[in-house]
Amino acid sequence: MGEHLRDHPVTPRTDAEKQAVVNRLKRVEGQVRGIQKMVEEDRYCVDILVQISAINAALKKVGFSIAERHTKHCVSDAVQSGEGEEAIEELMEVMKQFSK
Amino acid sequence: MGEHLRDHPVTPRTDAEKQAVVNRLKRVEGQVRGIQKMVEEDRYCVDILVQISAINAALKKVGFSIAERHTKHCVSDAVQSGEGEEAIEELMEVMKQFSK
Amino acid sequence: MGEHLRDHPVTPRTDAEKQAVVNRLKRVEGQVRGIQKMVEEDRYCVDILVQISAINAALKKVGFSIAERHTKHCVSDAVQSGEGEEAIEELMEVMKQFSK
Amino acid sequence: MGEHLRDHPVTPRTDAEKQAVVNRLKRVEGQVRGIQKMVEEDRYCVDILVQISAINAALKKVGFSIAERHTKHCVSDAVQSGEGEEAIEELMEVMKQFSK
Repeated sequence: MGEHLRDHPVTPRTDAEKQAVVNRLKRVEGQVRGIQKMVEEDRYCVDILVQISAINAALKKVGFSIAERHTKHCVSDAVQSGEGEEAIEELMEVMKQFSK
Repeated sequence: MGEHLRDHPVTPRTDAEKQAVVNRLKRVEGQVRGIQKMVEEDRYCVDILVQISAINAALKKVGFSIAERHTKHCVSDAVQSGEGEEAIEELMEVMKQFSK
Repeated sequence: MGEHLRDHPVTPRTDAEKQAVVNRLKRVEGQVRGIQKMVEEDRYCVDILVQISAINAALKKVGFSIAERHTKHCVSDAVQSGEGEEAIEELMEVMKQFSK
Repeated sequence: MGEHLRDHPVTPRTDAEKQAVVNRLKRVEGQVRGIQKMVEEDRYCVDILVQISAINAALKKVGFSIAERHTKHCVSDAVQSGEGEEAIEELMEVMKQFSK
C-alpha cells in the first residue's frame, strides 16, 4: 500500500456508511453470479453484454460515491493542512484509471 | 428478452468455452467480495477505487471476448443468411452501452 | 497503414455519406475552437470541462456511425467471402480502443 | 453559466498556462481536420476510427489537466473558506460526464 498516502480514510466511515456501500456491492456480486448462470444456460450473447454493462455502471456509481466522500474528507483535510497538492494528484491519477 | 433477436447463440457454447467465461466471472465475484471486506475494514478510499477500476477492466475484457464470439458466430451467421442489418444494429447498440 | 486490412472501404462512401460525416466533424472542429476561446478568456474550468465532454460524446457518435457502416459493408463482405475472422478481430481491436 | 459556481477560476490562468492548453487544443483541431480529409478521400474505416480514438484520448488528457488545476485552485480555495462541499459535488458531477 506504500504507494498511497495512507491506509485508512482520515474520517472513519460510520457503520451506516459502510453498510450502504457493502449493500450495493452485494447487489453487484449477485449480478455477477447472475451472469455466470446466463453463461451456463448458454443465453444469448447480447443479453449477457447488457448485464455486464449494467454491472459496470453500478460499479462506477459506487466508485464515484467513494471518490466524492474521499474528496470531502481526506482531500479536504489535506488541503486544510497545506498538503493538498499530493492528495489531489493521487485523486486525479485514480480518476484517470476509473474513466477508462 | 423480447427486444433481442434470439434467446441463445446460434452456435451453442462448448463446455470448455462456458467454463472459461465462468472462471473469469468467478474471479470477478471474488474481487467484488474483496472490496466489501476493504469497506468493512475501513480501508483507504483510493485503494478501494483502484480495485473497482480493476474489476471494471476485467469485466470489459470478458465483455469484449463475448462480443467477439457473438460477431464471429451470431452476426456472421445473420450476414450469411441475408439478415445482417438487424444483427449489426443490435451489436452496435450494445457496444455503445458498453463503451460508457 | 500496413497493419490494417485495406486502404479503402469495400463499398465506397457516397458523396452524401461523406458530406454528412464531414459536416459533423466540422461542428466538432468548431467546438474545439470554441474551447480555445474559453481558455483564452480564462473561463471557469468546469464550463470548459463540460464542453470537452460534449466533444467527446459527439466524436464517439461519429465513431459509432462509422463503425456501423464498416460492419455492414467491409466486415459483412469479408464474412461472405469466408474471411470474416480477421475482419472481426480488427473491428473488436478498434472498438476496445474506442471504449476507453 | 448560472448553474456553475463562478465565471472564472479563482486564480487566473497565467499566459503560459493558457498557451499550453491552447496549443494542445490546436493540435486536436488539426487532428479533427485530418479526419475530415480522410473521410473525403474515402479512407479505410478502421484507420479513421483509430484517429478518432486518438483525439478522444488527447481531449481526455487536456480535460484531466484542467480538472487537476481546478481542484488545486478553485476547489482547494473553496475548501479553505469552508465552502468545499458544493465545489466538490460540482467537480464530481463533471467527472462523471467525463468518464463516459
